[in-house]
Order: sequence, then structure tokens, then C-alpha cells
Amino acid sequence: MEGLLQSPANYVPLSPISFLERAAFVYGDQVSLVYGNKTYLWRETHQRCLKLASALSQMGVTRGDVVAALAPNIPELYELYFGVPMAGAVISALNTRHDAPMLGLLLSQLEAKIICVHHQFVEITLKALEVLSKPPLLIVMTESDQTPHQLPQNSLSYEGLVAMGKHDFEIVRPKDECDPISVNFTSGSTGTPKGAVYSHRATYLNSLGVILRYDMRAMPVFLWTVDIFRCSGWCFTWAMAALGGANIFIGNVTAEAIFDAICLHKVTYLCGAPTILNRIAETCSANFPPLPHKVEIIVAGALPPLQILNKVQEMGFIVSHSYGMTEALGPVIMKSLMHELDDDREKIRCREKIHNMMMEGVDVKDPTTMTSVPFDGKTVGEIMFRSNTLMSGDLGVRDTDGYIHIKDRAVDLILSSGGETISTIEVEAVLASHPAIEAAAVVGRPNDDLGDVPCAFVKLKEGCRASAQEIVEFCEDKLAHYMVPRSVDFGDLPTSSTGKIQKFVLRERDKAMGSLSHSNGH
Amino acid sequence: MEGLLQSPANYVPLSPISFLERAAFVYGDQVSLVYGNKTYLWRETHQRCLKLASALSQMGVTRGDVVAALAPNIPELYELYFGVPMAGAVISALNTRHDAPMLGLLLSQLEAKIICVHHQFVEITLKALEVLSKPPLLIVMTESDQTPHQLPQNSLSYEGLVAMGKHDFEIVRPKDECDPISVNFTSGSTGTPKGAVYSHRATYLNSLGVILRYDMRAMPVFLWTVDIFRCSGWCFTWAMAALGGANIFIGNVTAEAIFDAICLHKVTYLCGAPTILNRIAETCSANFPPLPHKVEIIVAGALPPLQILNKVQEMGFIVSHSYGMTEALGPVIMKSLMHELDDDREKIRCREKIHNMMMEGVDVKDPTTMTSVPFDGKTVGEIMFRSNTLMSGDLGVRDTDGYIHIKDRAVDLILSSGGETISTIEVEAVLASHPAIEAAAVVGRPNDDLGDVPCAFVKLKEGCRASAQEIVEFCEDKLAHYMVPRSVDFGDLPTSSTGKIQKFVLRERDKAMGSLSHSNGH
Repeated sequence: MEGLLQSPANYVPLSPISFLERAAFVYGDQVSLVYGNKTYLWRETHQRCLKLASALSQMGVTRGDVVAALAPNIPELYELYFGVPMAGAVISALNTRHDAPMLGLLLSQLEAKIICVHHQFVEITLKALEVLSKPPLLIVMTESDQTPHQLPQNSLSYEGLVAMGKHDFEIVRPKDECDPISVNFTSGSTGTPKGAVYSHRATYLNSLGVILRYDMRAMPVFLWTVDIFRCSGWCFTWAMAALGGANIFIGNVTAEAIFDAICLHKVTYLCGAPTILNRIAETCSANFPPLPHKVEIIVAGALPPLQILNKVQEMGFIVSHSYGMTEALGPVIMKSLMHELDDDREKIRCREKIHNMMMEGVDVKDPTTMTSVPFDGKTVGEIMFRSNTLMSGDLGVRDTDGYIHIKDRAVDLILSSGGETISTIEVEAVLASHPAIEAAAVVGRPNDDLGDVPCAFVKLKEGCRASAQEIVEFCEDKLAHYMVPRSVDFGDLPTSSTGKIQKFVLRERDKAMGSLSHSNGH
Repeated sequence: MEGLLQSPANYVPLSPISFLERAAFVYGDQVSLVYGNKTYLWRETHQRCLKLASALSQMGVTRGDVVAALAPNIPELYELYFGVPMAGAVISALNTRHDAPMLGLLLSQLEAKIICVHHQFVEITLKALEVLSKPPLLIVMTESDQTPHQLPQNSLSYEGLVAMGKHDFEIVRPKDECDPISVNFTSGSTGTPKGAVYSHRATYLNSLGVILRYDMRAMPVFLWTVDIFRCSGWCFTWAMAALGGANIFIGNVTAEAIFDAICLHKVTYLCGAPTILNRIAETCSANFPPLPHKVEIIVAGALPPLQILNKVQEMGFIVSHSYGMTEALGPVIMKSLMHELDDDREKIRCREKIHNMMMEGVDVKDPTTMTSVPFDGKTVGEIMFRSNTLMSGDLGVRDTDGYIHIKDRAVDLILSSGGETISTIEVEAVLASHPAIEAAAVVGRPNDDLGDVPCAFVKLKEGCRASAQEIVEFCEDKLAHYMVPRSVDFGDLPTSSTGKIQKFVLRERDKAMGSLSHSNGH
């Protein structure tokens, strides 16, 4: 009875490709992709992806090769997430906000054989390709409702490529379900973006994981407001085929476009960074009628401000918040947001508890001893996962009831000489509550006497003034002595191409300024 | 890029054990099991299963051993589906309708080390064990609200066993996710029940498959009306832990008990053989108020009669029908029942299309050439699956739109000398439409001149009369000549312990009677 005989009849490597094949049969007549006047059914999407895979094979793409992409959310980018794996290859969509040198660097790391580029990024791509010794073949995606652009030399149009393919192409299936399906770059908040390789098995399971976690039923209507290049669209690319869902694409993700899509296509789900809430709340609350039906918004990233959250929920949206990372295929632990009124009646609990079904183990451990931290709400440890993912570098504590409270990134933690660990997130939260401060970041500065000490970088709101001393005094009222910033520096905060504050830049800046206290208040 | 490095952090063998561990954390305070006055939370169920696994280990149960069970649907039987695999062992619940010789035969095949038996089946078990050279250790499950029964010699009580266990037991996890988790016996409609071995991987995936197929959301309330010994409760055992659902157990599955449970526990799902619909329709339609909320019924097996279906749907239940088999972990293709009115305005289409997400391939093939049958609604082939399952022996045709129409079991097919294949199901359907016939079965009889010829066995309705000739004439009006039964035999029809007609018995009976035409009408 040890082990069972495996055969092609009873053991099939897990792969999201199966979702598309099943969708073509079970949901063949249902809408798959909508963009402007363009609408495809699942049967058609299956056919186009088969032809795409066939054409890629004809172009010499073989098992394990990388096909890169640089495009906004459009149906063609979605197709690549099936067509490329069906040719046995690996898809890697790059961040459209990178500059040419960064794109060149990432493309050289990927050794991509082909890059599929939306026409608006052709120029920057050509510049990026200049530095490569073996530049990939360029495929240009031209939106069909626009005049065809002239193609650069030695390039092909995406539609021309698809037209070359045969619809009876035999899919190059993974030999092992742990073979790679996509490469996903981190946002680069700690330096150069790192590529996380996802496998067929991991993405198959995680697609089911997000469906189950968000209690999604068959045939949802999903509005693409999160970039597909981010964690393969949090695996919703593949999950939508599993569910026979309709993928709705809009050009610019404005509040108006979101509302139009909700009304026109009966959108039931959308997701993205918390800024999506700001955009909806700021633009829409006054101008728009109540939602015609239930719409769920899934945000991942920093916790949204309470007043924004309130506004969006008053408009009728159901919001849930997630914690995740590129290295873990997107959102992994999450909870619906609820206001838990306590003393100041203003806090939202951001403790994260309900981990995705695909997470086999979630713990908070001391990274040196690898023992679990006590459930005391104080002891900071590293948040660690066991699953189809890498180890994480984020910090958290265990509340007495076992909830995990996200504290900080390991690299951003400040260790004082007194043995205390300072969560920069906590200091930043106090700074951000100062009425004159728009944004704040805290980094540690090495100090012989005191270990590392916290140093603040703040950006004031337009028209507001505050001195460094005022800000320090404000913090002294609210924080333990060792947590109060020793210096306050004013100015814009450096952000990564995806909008995250780059603390490594601030640390460099701090080092360059020496260890004096800065107090050049505005 | 070929393959990715596997480590315990990023590769965890798939097993339903993970569902229970996650349920204990995420749904710890939610109800897991309810039976009479007894209610457990998921945290408690996790603890009890750990202790059960620990105690089994102490009793010498090791990796790959079989623990058998003989019990109705009670919380203790549910616990065995986690506790036994957590000790590394394999659970096999036996059909409670078997007689002692059959139980003895199956137990000797299983080489079970332990058998957990509900007190009402102790006597028959002791009889079954008499024939075994190495009888398993007997564990008796006594319902706690009843006076403890005296235990037979050398036996333990189930609660005593659990009490022996340690709550910090280290789970014996599968070495390979294809290791066995349960043995499930077929109903024996073609002879002696066959044991189908399910793996950790297969049951993990199929649990998610049934959740997704039935669009179940987190924390459903599931009423156990299907026997857990049947296909491991169609994998709903494990699926309920994945969802943090509440498992509601009732003693006798009467219509009254079902309605009481629906009202008291807010049941959202129940499932079973089509007879569950009869029971509900016959007993309840007049006496009960409208349903207080939405309740879904999933039936698998023969298509229920239209008038029964109508009654149950009029009462407010949502019914879906499935096709499945023990060898494929329960229901695999299914559709919601809809009336498609055609000429006689009385037919329900029973074409099965929407296969479970875990089915990688579903096809209808000629078993000799292994080519797919044309989509013509006529050519009969064998229904074949590719998935975590065995090959099937059921027959079907492909409709022009690709729907699969279940025809017959391969072994029951009649091959005439004219080269025609006769679906006994079609002949039986015509016989069943005769006003005097309560039940009918058709088998093939070898005949030198004509190949196999169809022979009918019918049971008349009480108080009704019909001669063999009348019945043959009735069939001649409705069937092609080669399909008309050459003989009609009257009497009770032999059924398996699970109520399926045993055609192999009829074939034996037919052989014994010789090849004459029988016409002993009532």
C-alpha cells in the first residue's frame, strides 16, 4: 500500500493550462475578455492561445525559454499567460514604469528570446535592447482600433504572429509540475528588483487558493485594475480561466472608467494597491449614484487610511485587505477590514490572520534560533511561510489570540544598543498622525554608543510648517524614549518605480549627511 | 530554468490533513461537528484527531496500515477520516448493509489492523471476524447519550482510545503525496465490491474540486445524508474542513429529521442518492412550511423521476444531478437539472457536461481502437477519464454539441450478431414506462444465431397484471426490432447491498433457465 502506481491516466502534472482547456469546453460560449469594442469567448481565447503557442514554437521558442512582455493590461498580455506556457516557455511581464537601463538589466538577466511590447513602449524597449549582446525578437502589440504603427526593423506584429499559428498545435506540457511558468520581479523597495520564479504547480494551487479565499463563484466579472505584471496579476490571470470568468480591461484606470465598467459589464471584483481606494473615494463619492450591485475590492499593501476606507465602504463597496509579496505569488494572508473601536475610537485592526488555503504553515519566528515567538503582541520575529514560496523577510508579532500583526521588513528593523528592536512602521505611524506631515519614513543610523538610532525623513503637506524640534516633541509624547527619532530631515521621499519608499536610498542619504541632527524646518 | 529546487519550505506534499490544521487556526471557534446534544468546534476536532492518531500509533498502527470502520454517519466516523491518516494509516469504512460473510471477505482483503465499530454492528462484526486468521483489534463506538454497552473481550471503547492519545502528537505525514489515504469499495453491482484506493493528492484536489464545482463558500452548513462509507462521503469529509463548514449528523435520515436540521442548524447543503428526493417529496410536501432559506441538494446516481424532482423543487430546494463513481472519488461530471421540453413535454435531459475542475480529460472512446466517438448522439463508446482516477467502464455517446449522454455500463452492453450494440438502459427505460411495471432490468443472453439477445426481468406494480406478450408488443412499438426483449421473466429483482440491481445474478438466473422464452405472467 506504499505509494500508488502512477500512469498518464491517474497522474497529470498540475498546470494552469488545464484551466483554459476546461474553460474552452465548459464555458466555451461565455465571455472571456472584453476591451473596448473587442469581446472574446473562452472558446476563442483557447484557440488564440493555441495559435500563439504554435507560432512561438515556429519562431524557435522551446521548453524553458523566456518570453518577456512590456504592456499595460490588455487582452494580448492576458493571452501570453497561457500561450507562452503552452509552448513550454516561461512568461515574464516587466514593470511598465521601469526606465530603459533597468529594462535592459532585467532583460539581460532573463535572456529572453522574444519580447512582446505594446506600441507605446516600443521606443523605450529599442533603447533598452541597445545594451544587449543577444537582443530578443521584438513583437509589437498594436491596439486594433488604432491606425497600425510602422513596425521597427526585424520585428513582427502580435496579430501577425498569432495568425501564423496552427489551431491544432500540440501543447508542450510541463514534464514536471514544478517546471517554471513565469518570472515575476519584486518592486525593488530594497534595491534592484529580484526575479521570483513561479512553477506550474504553485500557480495552479495558488489560483485555486485565491478563488477559495475570496469565496469566488463560477463566472465572476473581474475588472483588471491591478497590473498583470505584478505577481502574474496575483494569479487572477489563471484563476479567471478556472472559473470561466469575464476579464474586463479598461485603458486608463480612472474612477470614471471603473464606474462605467461596473455598470456596463456588471463587474463583481476588482483589486489593486490601496491607492485604488483613494482614487475611487476622491473622485467619485459625490458624483456617482449608488452601486447597482455588490462589488468587492481586494487591496494588498499598506493599510488604507480610515477616512478613505469609510468613504469607499459607504459607497457600497466591500473591501478586504491582504498581506502578500511577489515571492509568495501575491496575497497570502488577509482579512476583511473591520473597525474595532478602542480607546481612541479611530483604529482599524490590521492584524492578519486568515491565511490562504495554499499556505501550509505561517509562523512568526526568531530568525537566529528558529523558535516561534510567544503569543504576546510584543516579541518581534520574522514572518515565515511554508508553502510553494520562498522565505519572507517581513516582521511581525503574535497577538495573544494568535493573530499575526505585521511589523516591518527585516532589513528596515532598527536594533538599539539597549537590546530593543524598533519597528520603523510604528514610528512612521506616529509621524504620519502629525497634522503637518504628508509622508514619513524612518531608518536606522549606526551609532557607536546607542546601537542604531531612528532617523526620520518627512515630507510636509503643502502650505504646512513644522520644525524638527516640534516633531520630536510630538513623538516624545507618544513613543518610548528609544523610539523617538534622533534627527528629522525634510524633503521629498525617494520611491521605487512602483511607488514604495526606497529606504536604502534614505540610508545612503543619511550616511552622506553624517551623524548630526538635522533641523532645517520649513 | 528546467525545474525548480524543492525544499520543505516550498514543496509540501498535498494532503487533506492540511485542511484540518488550517481549520483549527482559521476557524478554531467555529462549529465543526453537531450530533444531538454534542457540538464540537474545529479547534476541538483538531485536538481529538491528533489524540486519536497518537493513540493509534501507540496501538502499533504504522505507515500504510489499514484501519477499518463500520458505523453510520456519526462524528466519530468523521474523525477517523483525519485521525487515521494523521497516524500515517489508511481508513476504510465498510458498507453497513453488508452481511457478515461479505464483511469478513473485505476485512481479509484489507488486512485491517484495527476496526472501529458502532455498537449496533458489534454482533455482526464479531461473526465476520470469526473467519479471519488475524482478526483486527476491535474498537467500539458507543453513543455518549446512551448507557455504555458492555465491551466484548479484547476490545476498547473509542472514547477510551482517544483519551489515551497525546495532544502534541507529531503527525505521520505522507512521504509522497500519492501515498494512500483511504480504501473505498464499489457497491458491487457487477459482482464482489472492488476496493478503490484514494491518495492524499487525489483527495486533496478532489475536495477542492467539489467545493469549486458546487460553488460552495466558506463555512457552509452540511447535512450528512450521504453515507460517509460511500467514496469517503464524496470527499465532503475533507472538503468541510477546507471550508470550515459545520457537519450536521442526524440519526435516521427521515424527511422529518432533515427538515428539523434545516430549520435548527440552517443547513445549506445535503446530498445523496436520488432516493433522498423521493423521501423528501413523499413525506413532506403537504406537511411542511416553505424552506426558511436556500438549500441545495446534490444527487448522484440514476436521474430522479420528473414528478419527484418537480415536487422537491416546488418546495424550494435547488437540485443538481451528478454522474460519478467510486473509482473516481465520487461525482465527476454534473449539471443542474433543467427541463428541456420537447415533443412529449416530459423529458429531462440527463446529458452530463460540466466536469469537475480536477478532471483533466473526459472523453467517449471506442475501447478497441481508443479513438474518440463522433459527436452524433448515436455512436456508443466507453466514457474515459484522465485525472487522479482509474479508467471507467461506463458507456456514453457524444451529442452534436459535445455533451456526454450516459448510456450503460460496459459489462451490461449487449452486442448483437448484426453488429448493433444494445444499451440495456434504453430498453429498461421503455419497459419502465409501461403502466404495469414497477422495475425492470435487461441482460444479454448468448445465442449462436443472433449474437447476444436482450432478455427482460420485470417486477410488476402491486395489483397490476401484464403478460410477457403484451410487454413485448409494447416494446415493439417503441424500439428497433433488435432491441426488443426475446424473453420476459417476472419476479423480484436481486439488488446489491446498496440497492443497485445485480445484473450478474440475473445473467446467472437466465443461464440456469436455459434459452427458452418465459411468459409466466402474473
